[in-house]
Amino acid sequence: MFENGRSKEVSSELYLASVFVSDAQYNRNIYFDTSPQAVRLYLLYNHWLPQVLLYIFIILDLSLALFEEPAVIPLPSWATMLVELLCLLVFTLRLVHYARVIPQDKFWKDPKNICIIAIVLTLIDMIIYGALKASSYQAIRWTRVLRPLLLVNVTEGRQLRRAFRSIRNALPQIIYVFLLFLFSLLIFSLMALKLVGKRDLKTTGGAPYFSSYVDIIFDLYVLVTTANSPDVMMPAYNASSWFALFFIIYILINTYIFMSVFLAVVYNNYKKYLKEEIRQLVRAKRHKMVRAFAVLQERRKDTEEQVVSQANWNQLVRLVQPDIRNAHRELLWSVLDPQNQGCIGKVAFVQLADLLNIEVITLKSRPHPLRFIFPTLYLSVPSRLICRLVRHRTFVMVYDLIILVNAIFIGLDEDNPLIADSEWMFLSLYLLEILLKLYVFEPRAFFSRHNFLNKLPSSFTSSTPSHIPPLFSPLSAPPQVVYYIFAMVGMELFKGKIKYFGEGSDDPTKLFCGNVLLNGTSFAQLNYCKNNFNDILSSFILLVELTVVNQCSGFTFVTHVSARIFFVVFHIIVVIIIINIFVAFVLEAFFMEYSVEKSDLHTSVERKIEELQLSVAQEKLEDNLVNAMDSTEGNCDTAEDKPVLMFKIASKSKNVFI
Amino acid sequence: MFENGRSKEVSSELYLASVFVSDAQYNRNIYFDTSPQAVRLYLLYNHWLPQVLLYIFIILDLSLALFEEPAVIPLPSWATMLVELLCLLVFTLRLVHYARVIPQDKFWKDPKNICIIAIVLTLIDMIIYGALKASSYQAIRWTRVLRPLLLVNVTEGRQLRRAFRSIRNALPQIIYVFLLFLFSLLIFSLMALKLVGKRDLKTTGGAPYFSSYVDIIFDLYVLVTTANSPDVMMPAYNASSWFALFFIIYILINTYIFMSVFLAVVYNNYKKYLKEEIRQLVRAKRHKMVRAFAVLQERRKDTEEQVVSQANWNQLVRLVQPDIRNAHRELLWSVLDPQNQGCIGKVAFVQLADLLNIEVITLKSRPHPLRFIFPTLYLSVPSRLICRLVRHRTFVMVYDLIILVNAIFIGLDEDNPLIADSEWMFLSLYLLEILLKLYVFEPRAFFSRHNFLNKLPSSFTSSTPSHIPPLFSPLSAPPQVVYYIFAMVGMELFKGKIKYFGEGSDDPTKLFCGNVLLNGTSFAQLNYCKNNFNDILSSFILLVELTVVNQCSGFTFVTHVSARIFFVVFHIIVVIIIINIFVAFVLEAFFMEYSVEKSDLHTSVERKIEELQLSVAQEKLEDNLVNAMDSTEGNCDTAEDKPVLMFKIASKSKNVFI
Repeated sequence: MFENGRSKEVSSELYLASVFVSDAQYNRNIYFDTSPQAVRLYLLYNHWLPQVLLYIFIILDLSLALFEEPAVIPLPSWATMLVELLCLLVFTLRLVHYARVIPQDKFWKDPKNICIIAIVLTLIDMIIYGALKASSYQAIRWTRVLRPLLLVNVTEGRQLRRAFRSIRNALPQIIYVFLLFLFSLLIFSLMALKLVGKRDLKTTGGAPYFSSYVDIIFDLYVLVTTANSPDVMMPAYNASSWFALFFIIYILINTYIFMSVFLAVVYNNYKKYLKEEIRQLVRAKRHKMVRAFAVLQERRKDTEEQVVSQANWNQLVRLVQPDIRNAHRELLWSVLDPQNQGCIGKVAFVQLADLLNIEVITLKSRPHPLRFIFPTLYLSVPSRLICRLVRHRTFVMVYDLIILVNAIFIGLDEDNPLIADSEWMFLSLYLLEILLKLYVFEPRAFFSRHNFLNKLPSSFTSSTPSHIPPLFSPLSAPPQVVYYIFAMVGMELFKGKIKYFGEGSDDPTKLFCGNVLLNGTSFAQLNYCKNNFNDILSSFILLVELTVVNQCSGFTFVTHVSARIFFVVFHIIVVIIIINIFVAFVLEAFFMEYSVEKSDLHTSVERKIEELQLSVAQEKLEDNLVNAMDSTEGNCDTAEDKPVLMFKIASKSKNVFI
Repeated sequence: MFENGRSKEVSSELYLASVFVSDAQYNRNIYFDTSPQAVRLYLLYNHWLPQVLLYIFIILDLSLALFEEPAVIPLPSWATMLVELLCLLVFTLRLVHYARVIPQDKFWKDPKNICIIAIVLTLIDMIIYGALKASSYQAIRWTRVLRPLLLVNVTEGRQLRRAFRSIRNALPQIIYVFLLFLFSLLIFSLMALKLVGKRDLKTTGGAPYFSSYVDIIFDLYVLVTTANSPDVMMPAYNASSWFALFFIIYILINTYIFMSVFLAVVYNNYKKYLKEEIRQLVRAKRHKMVRAFAVLQERRKDTEEQVVSQANWNQLVRLVQPDIRNAHRELLWSVLDPQNQGCIGKVAFVQLADLLNIEVITLKSRPHPLRFIFPTLYLSVPSRLICRLVRHRTFVMVYDLIILVNAIFIGLDEDNPLIADSEWMFLSLYLLEILLKLYVFEPRAFFSRHNFLNKLPSSFTSSTPSHIPPLFSPLSAPPQVVYYIFAMVGMELFKGKIKYFGEGSDDPTKLFCGNVLLNGTSFAQLNYCKNNFNDILSSFILLVELTVVNQCSGFTFVTHVSARIFFVVFHIIVVIIIINIFVAFVLEAFFMEYSVEKSDLHTSVERKIEELQLSVAQEKLEDNLVNAMDSTEGNCDTAEDKPVLMFKIASKSKNVFI
């Protein structure tokens, strides 16, 4: 294919191979044509700029909810719809680009097609909405719930799609357990009806208690969420202590056993499908690396083996990762080619993508600049004493103690002038620490990211499971998507039902949140008016509260059928499925920290680093310093005598599947 | 040792071996002297009568709380103390018996020694209490909290001890995570204090909001239990929506992540120590079986191997399990001695204890008695048609449908005369079913336990995890022990603080539960007065409510320091440890159902049953019947033509370690 001249040929092949390798490195999944135009189009598709633009437009599209009716900041609907049209245009362009990158047949089988449907539906909805608005009819922008689908289905939402796929795969089992749970719920409700229904009991509010089958089913369902305990039990319990037994058995079976079984089902499926997904990823990665190898392979003269030469490999690595340090690249090569034969076979070559994913920090150890500027002063006895003191572990302990005392002082009464003044003292102590450290440590080492991480309590960097996702990682995205959809539905259903009046308002309806139905309820009494669906932000907060579930007083208000259905569906999806996946994830991360050994590659790189005697073992360094303290030869620059290149493997928190 | 005559000798040896085997079968752990007196004493110790007596006295001792001040049924304290003395006497006798059964040095190392301490402390406490009462002083029976220790530490509380041992082993890790959690709690409380403390916000009740550090720590701790959500957040949220972010982050980190990590730690340790315990049990069992083999072994003439003859083995099995059927015993022998050599070696012999634990149901298939009494009538064409119909699966479906309709009718309004009358119809339909089945099936088969189990929906007998413990199994005992102790402490601390007045009472203090402090609180308004520590039953119910945690309104009352400490300690022990162990148990049971294959022994017995063609495969039987329906030769007694002995392995729910 690339036949115009030797050097050009190599370069084109390298170029193609580098695309395969970076696809493998970042687990990209697209199959493309190998013609130069297609490769260029493909590289453009994966360029950071269009990707960042896409994300910006997705965020813009999602945040339109802030400005649409019911709005946090109201904007005229023509403005929001114009922005939305622009977003749709960008998404369409991206999809067209995608369609030209991958083969036609692959495109039409791709789950991303939901995107097209979502875009078309949104357009139709906008037209209908516009027409109805123009003729002053009531209209609902129902396709707003489809917006998170765009986030799920753009190419970049791969992890999110994976998460939803694993939920979908777990569904049959969850539904099966749910049916069993429903059966148990119905039987218990029937028992409750027969036991209590005829006794004419009243709730604290004076309403009839456990008199209708449907009400009992809902009340007992809410009891599973623990939200109405013990209120739901009190009237019966007050009538006779024996009824408590019924509720205790119910709670044991339905709240504890069934909810644990739900967790077990979700956890089990999570593990199973996660394994399957990882297996597929590894297979795809290997496939791409083999293709890259096929492009670069040469026949070795002595053994007739297919190999890749070190020169080609070097060029390839530079293409894939232009910012890689030479020392780092040489380290990787020495891992792949331990006998130093100058070429590697397929088995070694395939490991490259994973090797590039191992973060190796290269530190250049240099002497302190002050040593050059004021050599005699910096190496004098008092200066060396300072260096020793600052490097000693007691120094760290003393400052840890100071921080602790400071924390206690912050908690104490501020009005005390002594305590208010102490802040200045602490501030100067911290300044002193920074100055001392800058004096002792080489500035670049002091400011290096890794050094800052080391300053955190070790429990945070080493012992706390490091696989736990950050707040906005792909794994916490499913709840956000679900929340967004529920917020949209909730706003359409319940907006304006409850009103919140600020502190200063003297609206006569303030006492019952602007809704006569709430007059005298504990919802109004407890001042819950701000828990409403009147805009997207309030909706989100309300949904978080519903997740935590204990809205006992809020539920006295939930008598309307649509609110009940909304709550039950939300609870099933968020608490039974999403939260359980979250718990499963934490459990799995914890068990992995406990059981999984470092991957082979990880250890082989580490071994190589050890072999090359370039390792910076923090403890060893500290030990040396302590020993140096004890001996008399210890001097200020023990560790920084000559500039040495040091490697250190970054924490093993790199997650395989993210 | 047993040297008086050949036949007597064999019998004594068999006797001794049978003791070893039944120790192995029931996982008993006591080492005894092999002198005949010691064996007799040991057998008496393990006899069912003293064991049942012991349990009766333990229950009596524990239920004394019903009659002691604060009592459900008050009795004079001399009466309860007399009964307690009697109980202590029984426990002491049992301990003395135990001391004579096991070697002296083993006895003093045994954890059961806590029992002795508990008994002595209880005696001292009773004397002091009696003396103080006699001189009309206030006195507390503080050793009442020690009573569950007796339950834990009698020999029979083995599983309970094991559960507590695994809790104890998990403690260091739990404490480590708890310290991290505490650190996070303190930091968040400090942030809350700095963010909100100076704003002079008020709670709905008008109290100052988040103004003192200690109060904030408590409030945020309770938020982890979700009990005071969203009340704890409302004043800040009403002041500014941004504060919601603080609470959402707090809930994410402390409620979700930390609580999941607690579950992970407990689950991980639970699994680890469970494995270790099972390993020890298996080792002890093998050791005992080897001892039994050593007693019975003879040298085989041809191979010089040490073996046990079939005759000895038969006698042994009859001694260990006197009620075993001959056919069952022969089946077991044919599993151990597949080549039918008439003797077995050590490896085969050791399996006996496990084999005896596999429940094999022997069914004798007999023709229907009516066939002998009225042969022509019973084998007539209409009679055969009835048989076919009743055996057909449609018959079962029709009756399942009838039950469903009946359930719906029960849920409907009873006052409707049509529905009230329908009960008679359903009753007669059920009677008809019983009569028809009695006509078709041989009565013994119809009434056999297994048949009744088969009548349950299959989802209950096969798919629901069968390892889940029944309500009062050893695994649910730890919560009961902990509840008992907390109930005792709670009663001493809070008895009489809250009073409950029945419906008819016109006591002026009824409105605020007899406690002026509660006047106007939502605790009183919601009529929670019956949630108190005034007797052991109320205490238990209150503790269950505290476990479910959502006592939002109840917590507005918890301002007293002792109540706060009580709640936090209870929450840590019950919710963080006990409930998590329960969840871990359900998870583990679920995963076992999914992954564990039947044990080898199980399958080898099943294979043998299959080989001997004695298997009753329910589905096969049904299939045959359906086929018989289609063919014209089908007759009423297809399956019951000749009396055949059939085996069936009972469900595999037998748990290895219980």
